[in-house]
Amino acid sequence: MVVTVLERLMERLKQIGITDVFGVPGDFSFALNDAVDNDPDIRWVGCCNELNAAYAADGYARIKGRAALCTTYGVGELSALCGVAGAYTEHLPVIHLVGMPGVSTQRARRIVHHTLGTGEFDAYADMTKPVVAASAVLTAENAACQIERVLEAALTRNRPVYLAIPQDHADAPLAGEPVCVPEAPQSDPEILAAAIEAIAEKVDAAGSAVVLAGYLIARLGLRPLATDLLARTGLPFATMFMDKTALDETLPGYVGLYDGRIMNPEVRDFVEGCDCVLNLGALWSDFNTGAFTAKIDSRRMVAVMQHEVRVGHATFREVEMRDVLTGLARVLSPKPGGAVPRPKGLGEPKGGPDEAITPDYLYPRWEKFLREGDIVVAETGTVSMGLGFARMPAGAEFFNQTLWGAIGWATPAAFGAAMAAPDRRTLLFTGEGSHQMTVQELGQFGRYGLKPIVFCLNNDGYLIERLLCKDPMSSYNDLAPWNYTQLPAAFGMPDWYTAKVTTNRELEEALSKAESCGTGAYVEVVMDRMAASPLAQKLGESIKTLYGNK
Amino acid sequence: MVVTVLERLMERLKQIGITDVFGVPGDFSFALNDAVDNDPDIRWVGCCNELNAAYAADGYARIKGRAALCTTYGVGELSALCGVAGAYTEHLPVIHLVGMPGVSTQRARRIVHHTLGTGEFDAYADMTKPVVAASAVLTAENAACQIERVLEAALTRNRPVYLAIPQDHADAPLAGEPVCVPEAPQSDPEILAAAIEAIAEKVDAAGSAVVLAGYLIARLGLRPLATDLLARTGLPFATMFMDKTALDETLPGYVGLYDGRIMNPEVRDFVEGCDCVLNLGALWSDFNTGAFTAKIDSRRMVAVMQHEVRVGHATFREVEMRDVLTGLARVLSPKPGGAVPRPKGLGEPKGGPDEAITPDYLYPRWEKFLREGDIVVAETGTVSMGLGFARMPAGAEFFNQTLWGAIGWATPAAFGAAMAAPDRRTLLFTGEGSHQMTVQELGQFGRYGLKPIVFCLNNDGYLIERLLCKDPMSSYNDLAPWNYTQLPAAFGMPDWYTAKVTTNRELEEALSKAESCGTGAYVEVVMDRMAASPLAQKLGESIKTLYGNK
Repeated sequence: MVVTVLERLMERLKQIGITDVFGVPGDFSFALNDAVDNDPDIRWVGCCNELNAAYAADGYARIKGRAALCTTYGVGELSALCGVAGAYTEHLPVIHLVGMPGVSTQRARRIVHHTLGTGEFDAYADMTKPVVAASAVLTAENAACQIERVLEAALTRNRPVYLAIPQDHADAPLAGEPVCVPEAPQSDPEILAAAIEAIAEKVDAAGSAVVLAGYLIARLGLRPLATDLLARTGLPFATMFMDKTALDETLPGYVGLYDGRIMNPEVRDFVEGCDCVLNLGALWSDFNTGAFTAKIDSRRMVAVMQHEVRVGHATFREVEMRDVLTGLARVLSPKPGGAVPRPKGLGEPKGGPDEAITPDYLYPRWEKFLREGDIVVAETGTVSMGLGFARMPAGAEFFNQTLWGAIGWATPAAFGAAMAAPDRRTLLFTGEGSHQMTVQELGQFGRYGLKPIVFCLNNDGYLIERLLCKDPMSSYNDLAPWNYTQLPAAFGMPDWYTAKVTTNRELEEALSKAESCGTGAYVEVVMDRMAASPLAQKLGESIKTLYGNK
Repeated sequence: MVVTVLERLMERLKQIGITDVFGVPGDFSFALNDAVDNDPDIRWVGCCNELNAAYAADGYARIKGRAALCTTYGVGELSALCGVAGAYTEHLPVIHLVGMPGVSTQRARRIVHHTLGTGEFDAYADMTKPVVAASAVLTAENAACQIERVLEAALTRNRPVYLAIPQDHADAPLAGEPVCVPEAPQSDPEILAAAIEAIAEKVDAAGSAVVLAGYLIARLGLRPLATDLLARTGLPFATMFMDKTALDETLPGYVGLYDGRIMNPEVRDFVEGCDCVLNLGALWSDFNTGAFTAKIDSRRMVAVMQHEVRVGHATFREVEMRDVLTGLARVLSPKPGGAVPRPKGLGEPKGGPDEAITPDYLYPRWEKFLREGDIVVAETGTVSMGLGFARMPAGAEFFNQTLWGAIGWATPAAFGAAMAAPDRRTLLFTGEGSHQMTVQELGQFGRYGLKPIVFCLNNDGYLIERLLCKDPMSSYNDLAPWNYTQLPAAFGMPDWYTAKVTTNRELEEALSKAESCGTGAYVEVVMDRMAASPLAQKLGESIKTLYGNK
């Protein structure tokens, strides 16, 4: 029974649970496009452009744990690169499939479209290497091995990978079966035992301890393990910004969002006052630490990361986070805690019905609008900084691209997330500047029968930049003035509920209708040019100091 | 007098004629953004996203000979990469300025936003290298030299370049003045003389000769020289697809478009029948040669390229195209020609007023719509393949991205071209699939007071792909069904003339109004799903054969 390169690839993709492929077709990728199109178990999800497709795959992978992206050679793959890099930083296994000119064309150094015109064909695969965990150009000779190696890297490193398929090898029979299947990274039993012992000692010796529940818990599928660990030990937990909803915010031990010296002083005092801080997979990045104002003495810190553990100043490598959590649940004893802060929400909306909408009304009101199980996609910028401090209902997930921070991500990511979970409610919260970047993907919701609720916050420019730069009124922070509520109809969804709201009363009415309209909903919320949430205001100051923009 | 890194950069940019900077701001690039914003002689042109900004810079550089693009670190520059690569392939000097985290942040390996989270900062500059002629990360110590080196590379190689400016060095005083200014590539006098002699011998010995006027004539600013050469020698000339309007199509020696065996048999017979073919800067790529069906014996061919000359099988390096043309104009004697073909246009539109619009009506009618001096931006795909055979009026320029072939290029490129020449008429011809990719840049026309005429050809999917792939009705060729004529109003231009036309009569009315409305105009032309121009139909067949998609 002859198996071709693409047949094997499709078979393996399905085995690892890929049921949708986001992408844009192209002539060098027709073999791939056809393979998806002809397979009853995999759906082609056409996107308006490749960057949007990559962001959609990112959003989808946040729900499903993995995603596939397919683009054509050069023009397609390079357009997607920023989105692939984003998935890399955010630990999302996006499998990037690229159709490329045939090996025979490459050997002849023919000057074909989508090349640089130099007879050279390797540049793009090389350009991609820094932002993927593994890559290969598949041929009949190497495909059996390389497919295994690269897919395994995606799933065990939780990062994007790159597979290019030359046109003339797509349908070629595999020359052999894998003989060099690499093994997934595994814990070394001795090191693992030592690491767990070191952590247990540290935690046991501490008078008080707190967990920081990091994003890797969610990304690596470790929520049940981590939740179990917390239940057994009774340890309280906080999250940082990038990690929001890594664990359910309605769990009993939740104390709130820890953001260094910038926000939530009671959470800060508690976390920084504990004798031991057990960081389970959180990253110490600028926007995750209140611009590096989160200060925890390394000696009091334990960090359990994907492939290593740090206890104080000691690092234990070759230990997998999953194994460490499993071990800790076995050895850690219940830790009677003292008083812990109760998580705060945003409180009551402040403002009269006929007043202009302000952050003091908007963000608390949005918090009340959230429901159990909601998917909240919050764009980088002042919107997510306001909404990040809302308390999420049970099962609700909050997605933001905190490390990569590419504005424009949220609109297509919300589409991807909605595709992954059409039965859940998807809410997109975006500023209008970010929205403009990738706005055309809005039309995909209608095309695929999805009914999201979209909030576009229109404050007449890039507000986060007005807060961060020297002169808020610099012309580069201005935008083309669009009529946002006309977008759904233009993009093919004339039946959507739309509203442009400027007062609290109008907002109330729009929220009520958005919830009950039975179609997708698009609400443009107009606020003052400089109206920002407290975090955005304060972070602006801190970041100016940190990076010297003052 | 202390001069800072950015002051020097801005000064040199202005000296080489940069008056506009296309881009998207970002916090790591605020110093750059401020420098542009505060300079009365340079305008910041904000775009919706970075890829669009790169395409806009591409379109602008086609008119002005150079352009500047400014993006932020990581998320911005990577988003622009496909557009920068396009400018590379098409020989357009786009100067890409990137704001990056400070050197102090880099040395401390801090995990800041827009990085990969690894403490590593060099990846993006490395990823960019294959698609630029030169690049540098500017510091106080190296800027004086590196600015000279990199800008010179842009202008003498006619390719994009990359300059990253770490935040904390932007306002640092230059540590010195250039001591190592590299020299522009120059002709070696001996080799130049030999090359010119070899060409002249070849041409003189030939009974008949024809010039292929290539795109490099336009890119390198050699139109006056080439026009003069043709006038002195009386040589006839053809162009290939990528080279259309490299020389004015109303010049007396023009014989038409040469597209190998696919189109215009009389031009093919003439060109391929000449004893000598003098190729002045045309590229032998797939879509420029009718899928490699343009067959000219190497022994009969002379190719004058940017930095080298090929005469038969001999290559002469270190000779600059400008010098070669100057020399040829001096030594070549007038060449009495025999009968040459007269360039054909598309003839009369065929079809009755109430019939559905077909390619036989549309493309000839569009040809008649063109005026002297028009800027025609024709998107990759069936649209450009139909319009490419129209004869252009005097001074009209036809722009297409034939080698790179990134769909989506045309909409922002038309915006960039219109910004470069607001007094000329800019016409955008795009298919709707390509248009969806970058559609938001439409709003920029209104924002900057430009009044283009936009034709969006709606044939319900990616038609060129339907023609090229195995099964035209494959689902991946479908698109979200938009209401295109609602786009201008949604993007802030409610005053534009818009029309959706399906019959020839409606088309006539729309053309008449578009010409006279005094505002921007947006015409959606609906055609049958498989209605393609002859070239698109034939090329589909040829490409299928060439790349084995059958």
